Amino acid sequence: MRIAAVHSADGKIFGTVAHDEFRPLLIDGAPVRDLRDVIALLDAGPDALRHGPATALASLTLAAPVGPLTKNVICVGKNYHDHALEFARSGVDQSGDRQERPEFPVVFTKATSSLADPLQPVPASADPTGTTDYEGELGVVIGKRCSKVGPEEALDYVFGYTVVNDVTARAVQTRHRQWFLGKSLDGFCPVGPWLVTADEMGPLDGQMLVTTVNGERRQAAPLRDMIFDTPTIIATVSSYVTLEPGDLIATGTPAGVGIGFAPQCFLVPGDIVTVSIEGIGDLVNPIS
Amino acid sequence: MRIAAVHSADGKIFGTVAHDEFRPLLIDGAPVRDLRDVIALLDAGPDALRHGPATALASLTLAAPVGPLTKNVICVGKNYHDHALEFARSGVDQSGDRQERPEFPVVFTKATSSLADPLQPVPASADPTGTTDYEGELGVVIGKRCSKVGPEEALDYVFGYTVVNDVTARAVQTRHRQWFLGKSLDGFCPVGPWLVTADEMGPLDGQMLVTTVNGERRQAAPLRDMIFDTPTIIATVSSYVTLEPGDLIATGTPAGVGIGFAPQCFLVPGDIVTVSIEGIGDLVNPIS
Repeated sequence: MRIAAVHSADGKIFGTVAHDEFRPLLIDGAPVRDLRDVIALLDAGPDALRHGPATALASLTLAAPVGPLTKNVICVGKNYHDHALEFARSGVDQSGDRQERPEFPVVFTKATSSLADPLQPVPASADPTGTTDYEGELGVVIGKRCSKVGPEEALDYVFGYTVVNDVTARAVQTRHRQWFLGKSLDGFCPVGPWLVTADEMGPLDGQMLVTTVNGERRQAAPLRDMIFDTPTIIATVSSYVTLEPGDLIATGTPAGVGIGFAPQCFLVPGDIVTVSIEGIGDLVNPIS
Repeated sequence: MRIAAVHSADGKIFGTVAHDEFRPLLIDGAPVRDLRDVIALLDAGPDALRHGPATALASLTLAAPVGPLTKNVICVGKNYHDHALEFARSGVDQSGDRQERPEFPVVFTKATSSLADPLQPVPASADPTGTTDYEGELGVVIGKRCSKVGPEEALDYVFGYTVVNDVTARAVQTRHRQWFLGKSLDGFCPVGPWLVTADEMGPLDGQMLVTTVNGERRQAAPLRDMIFDTPTIIATVSSYVTLEPGDLIATGTPAGVGIGFAPQCFLVPGDIVTVSIEGIGDLVNPIS
């Protein structure tokens, strides 16, 4: 099943997507405004679902298909082999040994306030350092509260998958040493175009993650190329932090970001960034 | 004014504290469960305040006087001169140049799920590395939405101050390079005992921040010893991240944490940690 959120006269509401149509989900006749309520609805089984009338997707404005978030977006850095290498060599990495293959997952966060919708302009102009870069990533949405789960059972706690662009102000990331600020500018976390539930997505394996800038292919890797796979990430994070329904984890980016080029190239107003994952869809954002 | 939260038969509720008594705040006769509603009430002026009956504080269980948080706790690292030095020399610091005085504030986050109450046992036993350490800090609670404010006006956006213990699993902090996981174990962010509003606190200057473990003094510094003061921190964070009412910023810790000793000493079950700030109060937590 595909779960989307749209902006309506009623505010942001959640629903299902099929055949290019959006059907709002209802609870007691009222629209659903919180992804946690969608998760609870689907847990109750398909017979519990009530829908409003279908509308053509093309006539609607998609919103980030998550939230309200109760934790920052949890992000994994340096999680594809070739990207770990390009990042270590870029000068942006300020971790002591500039390790080319992390021994443990590198985990940081993006502020909830950085969340952005599909097609929402990403304000590179708000980055005073002019070093705004894309990072196409698989997003994992937690479906059940979990703490200290092993990798073998970790996927039981996944509700679904989406696409995240972990937009980053590189010079801000570098100069503050810890990455939070450079990753958390308002509007620097586009998510979408929708969620695909875990049963529909199937095993994470050869699905290609591709990022283009103005149609030029920049990143392309199968999801199986992660250094730490999704079960390992969930097991690692949940060994310290209790995960809750609706929490969003961004699982890291493949090689091909702007700092990997010589000379390094950054996003500028007018650029269009598209992050696509096979089996999910295309997350498109203009740069402003 | 002092704002506290307590656990009641009605759940966590907010109120005012005076003369060792707690008086619940009411909106339309109902208890207030969200710090943002308290902030809005106080903004409307003292005439808008309605209270329930007073109860002796000693008969109540205090709760963290913040929340529900809509962002992770925003934390500043290496923000007192002597601590920056002890940390740089401890081996825990994995930032490239192990800089002894940061050129820019080092900003990371603690998960909302790490929040803990006054007197709540902090589970050092949940740290698999056995390297749990204290960090006594001044907590700043934002009162008004702000973005890109200058240091000269930053304090206008502060609602009040509290005490934070930024408990840290040092080996987890080190091995994951970014600090989020080692800082975010469940229960590793005690906050309290209450908030003191900005007008009552007055200028941040010579008030002493003191941390004791089992009565032994470990940290002691005046608030004026910060490398980046509170206005600079708010200006820096808000230049990237929109701050909202109820957001909590922990402003860093002075010298004297466990990794600063030779040999390094960590917290063990049975220890009692007290963080005190003059003009606010004592945040006491046993270690379990």
